[in-house]
Amino acid sequence: MASMLTQFRQLGRKIVAVGRNYRAHAAELGNPVPKKPILFLKPTSSYITEGEKIRIPEECSSLHHEVELGIVISKNGCRISEQEAMNYVGGYVLALDMTARDFQDEAKKKGQPWSLAKGFDTSCPVSNFIDKDTLSDPSNVRLWLKVNNAIKQDGSTSDMIFSIPYLISYISKYFKLEEGDVILTGTPEGVGPVSNGDVIEAGLGDIISMKFTVE
Amino acid sequence: MASMLTQFRQLGRKIVAVGRNYRAHAAELGNPVPKKPILFLKPTSSYITEGEKIRIPEECSSLHHEVELGIVISKNGCRISEQEAMNYVGGYVLALDMTARDFQDEAKKKGQPWSLAKGFDTSCPVSNFIDKDTLSDPSNVRLWLKVNNAIKQDGSTSDMIFSIPYLISYISKYFKLEEGDVILTGTPEGVGPVSNGDVIEAGLGDIISMKFTVE
Ligand SMILES: [Mg+2]
Ligand SMILES: [Mg+2]
Ligand SMILES: [Mg+2]
Repeated sequence: MASMLTQFRQLGRKIVAVGRNYRAHAAELGNPVPKKPILFLKPTSSYITEGEKIRIPEECSSLHHEVELGIVISKNGCRISEQEAMNYVGGYVLALDMTARDFQDEAKKKGQPWSLAKGFDTSCPVSNFIDKDTLSDPSNVRLWLKVNNAIKQDGSTSDMIFSIPYLISYISKYFKLEEGDVILTGTPEGVGPVSNGDVIEAGLGDIISMKFTVE
Repeated sequence: MASMLTQFRQLGRKIVAVGRNYRAHAAELGNPVPKKPILFLKPTSSYITEGEKIRIPEECSSLHHEVELGIVISKNGCRISEQEAMNYVGGYVLALDMTARDFQDEAKKKGQPWSLAKGFDTSCPVSNFIDKDTLSDPSNVRLWLKVNNAIKQDGSTSDMIFSIPYLISYISKYFKLEEGDVILTGTPEGVGPVSNGDVIEAGLGDIISMKFTVE
């Protein structure tokens, strides 16, 4: 099982991401704290891994980093209860939810979808698969991100508004979850722009770190 | 090739949909005619085929039908030119872009993503794969939809604002297209609500028709 899940990028068919799941991050973008999870999709074609570069999409003038904990789903399920939710977690992944903030700001203003702002090619840099047992407490682990060696984000998953079991249960009421799908659980405060040539380094506790260049 | 594409629901990993691609439909929802394509994503987990039922998602009180021509992508491509675009079309599919209109109205008002409104389970009923040669002129074919035998939508793909080659070229600037991916090209005017027990019948010219029940 876990050995197939290491291939989640090929196996999975969707990435369900959660917006504003940390209070301080909702506040820094001037948004209210949500009463229910804000969900959006990124396509699996947006995945890249170390060695591949983050590309600024055409006409984007404000590409932001967001470091997030990703959940890799181990088996198919619908209407999963919170009590059962952790049985559907096969492992984790460290991820960047790269965001064309100017596209997103325009979409928000016009009431249009976020898909282009969030789903462009290279918008989902990810680490290798992290086995479930390696991360004993996903609800209390440090998430950090540096740009050119300066720390920009440094938070803990303990500050999530909606917990991992709650998110799995809520999402699966609407979206059937399938083996290899990934849930991105939101980003702590400190998001900001990156430019051509910048080096982004991110880490999850002392478990894993990864490095990507923007071009 | 075509024989693999008949399995587009299993093979493909994304559905890229286009909003407001017919003037009269943009107008009926009180929206301006877009200057560039409005793109959103539906997950492949939203596909159903005849015999399966359209389910009204939890807390949705206004589920709308939208009949659309779908393009099935035959091979991987990025930054495809308009001139080359039709070489990436492997075939077609008749599709319903079922929409939780109340969820969408709330999302538009709050500047939030459309994903839940557009991507819930059973939100993408589709016909069988239609071979490319069967539909000789995709830019001029009738699209119709009936609810309980009363005609609701009756348009022609000749009224699209952005043509199929333009859409393929535009989308592939941002989203790598992959074999089996589907592009939904927008709906003509006449969208409206359906309720429990309603029967939706839709057709593409005299090429194909399909029937789904709402539950
Ligand atoms: Mg969206
Ligand atoms: Mg995010
Ligand atoms: Mg539509």
